[in-house]
Amino acid sequence: MSKGDATRQAILERALSMSSVVGLEGISIGRLADDLALSKSGLFAHFRSKEALQLQVLEVAVRQFVESVVRPALKEQRGEPRLRALFERWLDWARSQSLPGGCIFVSATMEMDDRPGPVRDALARYQQDWVNVLATATRAGQESGAFRGDLEPAQFAQEAYGLMLSYHLFARLLRDPHGEARARAGFDALLKRAVGPVRQGRKHSSRRARNSPTRSATRSR
Amino acid sequence: MSKGDATRQAILERALSMSSVVGLEGISIGRLADDLALSKSGLFAHFRSKEALQLQVLEVAVRQFVESVVRPALKEQRGEPRLRALFERWLDWARSQSLPGGCIFVSATMEMDDRPGPVRDALARYQQDWVNVLATATRAGQESGAFRGDLEPAQFAQEAYGLMLSYHLFARLLRDPHGEARARAGFDALLKRAVGPVRQGRKHSSRRARNSPTRSATRSR
Repeated sequence: MSKGDATRQAILERALSMSSVVGLEGISIGRLADDLALSKSGLFAHFRSKEALQLQVLEVAVRQFVESVVRPALKEQRGEPRLRALFERWLDWARSQSLPGGCIFVSATMEMDDRPGPVRDALARYQQDWVNVLATATRAGQESGAFRGDLEPAQFAQEAYGLMLSYHLFARLLRDPHGEARARAGFDALLKRAVGPVRQGRKHSSRRARNSPTRSATRSR
Repeated sequence: MSKGDATRQAILERALSMSSVVGLEGISIGRLADDLALSKSGLFAHFRSKEALQLQVLEVAVRQFVESVVRPALKEQRGEPRLRALFERWLDWARSQSLPGGCIFVSATMEMDDRPGPVRDALARYQQDWVNVLATATRAGQESGAFRGDLEPAQFAQEAYGLMLSYHLFARLLRDPHGEARARAGFDALLKRAVGPVRQGRKHSSRRARNSPTRSATRSR
């Protein structure tokens, strides 16, 4: 890595951490330059505009997200193990030290949804990609026979995302110590519905239902 | 209403509409003055600081929310009718013409959760109040016998809020035409779990289960 690349990388990491707290619009070139002991013009040499910087911050975040959440989780077995891994790693990501303000995609979504432009377009593309990952993992669970055939993958994805978003509200804004456990309990219930009444009826008559990971996995509540 | 009060009211309405799009931090005193053909100093005479304006914008939003969502919904019968009314009116609120950027509390939450200060504190108080309304309505449903006794009201509230938040993501950022129908389907499923297996087992053996509003209510999908 050249010195220029290393500086660029350092700027992007700092800008990512900053924008998790103050949003993408809140990134200040002046504060970034101060924090990194660079001149403003030196910083502008790397990113010609705030918009270019915002776009690259999102790109860095996506790369990190794919490496720490998506790629390892997709190695898990189809069905519950894979979806649980996606959800747990997603929670880890939102609590990561490098994102003091929580998930950058969550804060950027509510910030940018009504601001037309290239940043909003890129964010919507990335979010749709992630929703597609969740929906595809759900479909793979159906194909393997682990989930109900009449489950709608997009429905599963939207509800799972809701659990992550309300986790942010309860844990971060309301500082509710039970927010995380409730997010997990909600995801358990979502998985239970995905497995469906055939395998998890009230009577638990089949061995499969008794041994289903939904019932036996460690829970935090 | 005196002329001063009317001006103040007009400023707050405009600031509320603006902040639903650009956030509470994005409120610009200069643009507000332009939009309303007031001088900046005239505007400052009404609100000594941007923070005072932000706090009053939230107050106005809360008053409107209570009038259009909470108060009418609480007149509905305990249990499903009341919770459905709360959820439907909440969706209406998020789509209201006076909030071009969607629910102000949603955007403000992701914006302010990491910005300590009086605005964050007020927002957290209002959000907790609303979560308590949802939890209390859930508890009333338990007391009336409509919902399972082992249901956790706070769990219900957090999951319901998640459905509203992911509705914002899907409908507003991703412009997914099915986002709203999925939010409703998710809420149907949440209510079904609240009613519980005793009344809604697979066999639908009781008359009550067959006639439950969860099953017969009009759905948009």
